[in-house]
Amino acid sequence: MSSSFGKNFVVTTFGESHGNGVGVIVDGIPAGIKLTEEDVQVELDKRRPGTSAFVSPRNEADKVEILSGTFKGETIGSPVAMMVRNTNARSGDYDNIRDYFRPGHADFTYYKRYGTTPLPGGGRSSGRETIGRVTGGVIARLILGESVQFNSCSTRIGQVEGKRIDWEFAKGHPLRFGDPDLADQAIEEVKDAMQRHDSVGGKLALNIKGFPAGIGDPAFRKLDALLAMGIMSVGAVKGVEIGAGFNVCSSYGSVNNDPITEDGFGSNNAGGILGGISTGQDININVAIKPTSSIMSEQNTISAVDGKNKVIEVVGRHDPCLCPRACVVVEAMAAMVLADLYLGKIEAIKN
Amino acid sequence: MSSSFGKNFVVTTFGESHGNGVGVIVDGIPAGIKLTEEDVQVELDKRRPGTSAFVSPRNEADKVEILSGTFKGETIGSPVAMMVRNTNARSGDYDNIRDYFRPGHADFTYYKRYGTTPLPGGGRSSGRETIGRVTGGVIARLILGESVQFNSCSTRIGQVEGKRIDWEFAKGHPLRFGDPDLADQAIEEVKDAMQRHDSVGGKLALNIKGFPAGIGDPAFRKLDALLAMGIMSVGAVKGVEIGAGFNVCSSYGSVNNDPITEDGFGSNNAGGILGGISTGQDININVAIKPTSSIMSEQNTISAVDGKNKVIEVVGRHDPCLCPRACVVVEAMAAMVLADLYLGKIEAIKN
Amino acid sequence: MSSSFGKNFVVTTFGESHGNGVGVIVDGIPAGIKLTEEDVQVELDKRRPGTSAFVSPRNEADKVEILSGTFKGETIGSPVAMMVRNTNARSGDYDNIRDYFRPGHADFTYYKRYGTTPLPGGGRSSGRETIGRVTGGVIARLILGESVQFNSCSTRIGQVEGKRIDWEFAKGHPLRFGDPDLADQAIEEVKDAMQRHDSVGGKLALNIKGFPAGIGDPAFRKLDALLAMGIMSVGAVKGVEIGAGFNVCSSYGSVNNDPITEDGFGSNNAGGILGGISTGQDININVAIKPTSSIMSEQNTISAVDGKNKVIEVVGRHDPCLCPRACVVVEAMAAMVLADLYLGKIEAIKN
Amino acid sequence: MSSSFGKNFVVTTFGESHGNGVGVIVDGIPAGIKLTEEDVQVELDKRRPGTSAFVSPRNEADKVEILSGTFKGETIGSPVAMMVRNTNARSGDYDNIRDYFRPGHADFTYYKRYGTTPLPGGGRSSGRETIGRVTGGVIARLILGESVQFNSCSTRIGQVEGKRIDWEFAKGHPLRFGDPDLADQAIEEVKDAMQRHDSVGGKLALNIKGFPAGIGDPAFRKLDALLAMGIMSVGAVKGVEIGAGFNVCSSYGSVNNDPITEDGFGSNNAGGILGGISTGQDININVAIKPTSSIMSEQNTISAVDGKNKVIEVVGRHDPCLCPRACVVVEAMAAMVLADLYLGKIEAIKN
Repeated sequence: MSSSFGKNFVVTTFGESHGNGVGVIVDGIPAGIKLTEEDVQVELDKRRPGTSAFVSPRNEADKVEILSGTFKGETIGSPVAMMVRNTNARSGDYDNIRDYFRPGHADFTYYKRYGTTPLPGGGRSSGRETIGRVTGGVIARLILGESVQFNSCSTRIGQVEGKRIDWEFAKGHPLRFGDPDLADQAIEEVKDAMQRHDSVGGKLALNIKGFPAGIGDPAFRKLDALLAMGIMSVGAVKGVEIGAGFNVCSSYGSVNNDPITEDGFGSNNAGGILGGISTGQDININVAIKPTSSIMSEQNTISAVDGKNKVIEVVGRHDPCLCPRACVVVEAMAAMVLADLYLGKIEAIKN
Repeated sequence: MSSSFGKNFVVTTFGESHGNGVGVIVDGIPAGIKLTEEDVQVELDKRRPGTSAFVSPRNEADKVEILSGTFKGETIGSPVAMMVRNTNARSGDYDNIRDYFRPGHADFTYYKRYGTTPLPGGGRSSGRETIGRVTGGVIARLILGESVQFNSCSTRIGQVEGKRIDWEFAKGHPLRFGDPDLADQAIEEVKDAMQRHDSVGGKLALNIKGFPAGIGDPAFRKLDALLAMGIMSVGAVKGVEIGAGFNVCSSYGSVNNDPITEDGFGSNNAGGILGGISTGQDININVAIKPTSSIMSEQNTISAVDGKNKVIEVVGRHDPCLCPRACVVVEAMAAMVLADLYLGKIEAIKN
Repeated sequence: MSSSFGKNFVVTTFGESHGNGVGVIVDGIPAGIKLTEEDVQVELDKRRPGTSAFVSPRNEADKVEILSGTFKGETIGSPVAMMVRNTNARSGDYDNIRDYFRPGHADFTYYKRYGTTPLPGGGRSSGRETIGRVTGGVIARLILGESVQFNSCSTRIGQVEGKRIDWEFAKGHPLRFGDPDLADQAIEEVKDAMQRHDSVGGKLALNIKGFPAGIGDPAFRKLDALLAMGIMSVGAVKGVEIGAGFNVCSSYGSVNNDPITEDGFGSNNAGGILGGISTGQDININVAIKPTSSIMSEQNTISAVDGKNKVIEVVGRHDPCLCPRACVVVEAMAAMVLADLYLGKIEAIKN
Repeated sequence: MSSSFGKNFVVTTFGESHGNGVGVIVDGIPAGIKLTEEDVQVELDKRRPGTSAFVSPRNEADKVEILSGTFKGETIGSPVAMMVRNTNARSGDYDNIRDYFRPGHADFTYYKRYGTTPLPGGGRSSGRETIGRVTGGVIARLILGESVQFNSCSTRIGQVEGKRIDWEFAKGHPLRFGDPDLADQAIEEVKDAMQRHDSVGGKLALNIKGFPAGIGDPAFRKLDALLAMGIMSVGAVKGVEIGAGFNVCSSYGSVNNDPITEDGFGSNNAGGILGGISTGQDININVAIKPTSSIMSEQNTISAVDGKNKVIEVVGRHDPCLCPRACVVVEAMAAMVLADLYLGKIEAIKN
């Protein structure tokens, strides 16, 4: 199922919504890095459900356990395995699989791929799979060090589009919205959707500062190509832009080219990446997040048993808007890609 | 340099703008497929320079030679190596490397990565690297068979945005523009840019019909994730959308979810992919192409020798708009991804 | 640390002798395979320490827990994660790492590689790492099905070389010795070594019946090449032979070539593999197992702290002869290789 | 067909005995290494056929062409593609494939795997495939530098077993035999076989000096595991030993453990590798080479057309003993493995 990501820094995730737990093996970690369960827990708590009115009320403690790879609080070069147990999995529901394909979900395609009828909580396509990604991302950041800083926020929620970004403000906002002036409106947009038993999409911005120039593996494992792959592999993502993104379509070379001067680049339409290699400027990425597929309204679908038409209403515990939690996962994926390429850098040899 | 792409269908490219040639080794090809140099040449001719007023006048015959992997016109399971010689490389220019970093190009980042001063024609970051990709794509299509159909066109050129798509019309248009009503305007937009010694960006649409449901490797090698990686690894690409793409940001679950009926899906906002697996619907992708970085106007940069400010004008042979040739490469990348996942499909085992 | 093995059937192990546990993520498993913890436990019990006078007295229950990848006792296409807790790790010893490099162990080279001073129990180089391999091997066999049968036994223990092999006899013998006539002598050989506070080496034979012809990926991932890699990656292995092995050195083509007849091959010097692909005959492999490095006699080494000469005696719980447990691990590695190549087989396409 | 080998230093070969040529793409090469066609040709000439009475009389110039990856005689970080044309392929024979499976060859298994009837010269299983390996090995050595020295020789030819090794003598001997006292006898052994229209097997020794301690990727990509894989992937190899090899089977821990002293190791039974990581001592490997499968005597086989019994005599141009040429290929494979692991070494990070 291709549950591994990375070449030098390899993250292999496991786990479904049902089952005993979810987790990760992170391999390729240099020795000597301080790492404790607390380091991981801090980040995990950011994506944890049950923390506000706008995320799924499924109440999971999501306590991480480090199973291997450290000694006296330091990495030793071994793979670090980490696990989170599923504690609130409503096991009573688990004897019965659903008998219909939920629109917008992977039920139908998993059935086509694996022959499995819809699994409780979506099985492996559940958002709980991202726990392994987030824990992997924590280690990726430790490798990159504190000089590389990640910031992310929601820049659009449905009809509300932010005009500016205040990264610090976003961190304290329940929707992680970046524009303080429009943040209340964004909350109203989500509340409206919730009242209609609907969900709402949004856009994220990711900004990475301090990543050194000269990292990236041209041809196919370009920095931007791997970022696009990693981010597009997150459940609800439907679009990825680097730097000026789709704005380049209406632009001209004389405008879009970033001039180079003795004091650095004069602009950053490239988003910090040229030819698949970092320029040393900020890496800027926008991400399209689709509205949560699970909505408590009537929808048309077909039965997973007999293929007949069926009107269903998806019950369960769901986020009305995935943006705030997606920020955490997208940051983790980006950190993995950067760590992977960073560890793979090979110096010139003069023979 | 990560010149290999794919897991089951592996394409490894080589070659620079200078040097003796460019090419590819394609591995993972099933035996028994009819393949001749003519099959490859047809597709290669589509991306060849020197064919219209809107593409680079560098005149390369780009004649492909199959070096291995076939016997009596059929594949035998062996890797197929194919090569195109650089015949019009203006070898007189090759003794001297450039002494400045071209804005928008990879000169600066290659220098940071490899310590190499700017190479003639951009070295490996040259568009000639895509010859290997296009030839690899030809074989990918032969594996997929004729029931899988690829179409691509320009949907925007600078300020001219198409309102509709006529795939057949696009194939005959020098800019591969999809909207017959606005196609002349698109040409004017490019001509204007050329007169100003400028270049212009654009947007591409890719449509794939007939790819069966149930193909894709969830978790990290999702169909959409690999498509995003493959397409973002093409030189000028700055954004990738699947299905509704960035339109999902302002949408709602009740609108964005594609209902399922006995007669198939009721809409296709998903763009033919759910949970990283094909639904059997059309796969729809939009791609942002930046304006060509090489423009014959004055630009600010720094010297590759002493790092001092420098005003330069990039001379050479360049496309004023990359869209028509990018279509060919994007199609090839998509075909590779599809073939790779198609060959990797594993059936259920009942023990 | 390269803890993943395989391309289509991917086994990723984790865990050290110290730490909370050891385990594995197995990815690439087709859906629909019946799999319970009991299936795994049976095999795990074969390599478990503390079961006879001739294996390490470390008493670990080695109870396996399946964390993911099944639903109602069947695989669902997801990665199966399995874990065994370290319960008898003598945690009191774990505050102190050793201050010397044990001869024959990886302490010295891990120090050179990772800068880590010797870890309790050898850390990741401990035999406990093989638990992940054995559990992975169980699933590999379920994929191959019951028609593929694995047998292994000790054919030599120190000075005692078996003359014939009785696979069934070996299964019940504490040293897994294959020759019933010499089995008591083999036990005496081990007892002698134990009395001298020494350890003893041995040779294993592995026989695989029923693997179909036509499986193997020529060039580099040849069936024999992958078997050699997988088996040589097991701790104490110093040599691998396929079929006639080193006997070919003194042979002639007229003798060594296996004639082919309408009734099958006339001999099997090839050991079931030609050109890296299975012939359908038995696959026969011999493996050299070095004497256990840990011996309770005085040995010369240097201090891990100051590099000075030091005379040490390795205390701890050790197997006097690794052969019986190595059989289990070698079988598991072979099963993984076979499953990996089996799942990667691609049929010819006629276009 | 898995024609790629390596993770950080990736060698991808192509080509068959028939067809236009054979060659390689070598990726992962650091920039700045001096590399010319002459550097490669020197090594290639060592494995070239037609050079003595004891190797195949097929007369191939085997002139290498570098197609990409260098500029002014230095590597630039790009993949280096190299090609050798098939010039003496006896094209007249190529219209007809053989109608029987040659015993000892891969004809039968390729048929089972790919459905291809026997190809001229064995197709991809031909020894000509090793040209790509040898050329890849040249670059691997340039990466390792002159401080890492490879030596190889024949230590046994049929009934003649060398008692000592003189590496320099071997380099000048047509059978690359290591023992000057028995070298003439070894030649007689081969001549005898030739007169009987037979072929003869042999044993090789490989010795590598100067490889630094601390290189190797534990768990699965152990230094010895990758060496075993790489070497076993060479056509005629049936066994691989590291250090004391199969002699460990009759040894004891007190004898086999290499003591460590302030002045280095006291012996080298480990063959320079502990726990999959280099110790800094010599790396010593023995390799079993089977007798050439092609012999000009009558053999029993079956028809590839109707499966009926058939008595055949293999005509063509063949080496009576593969040892001298296998030395060159085995050295190249070992160099690739060392370069691959050397480039993958990651330093500890102290955060």
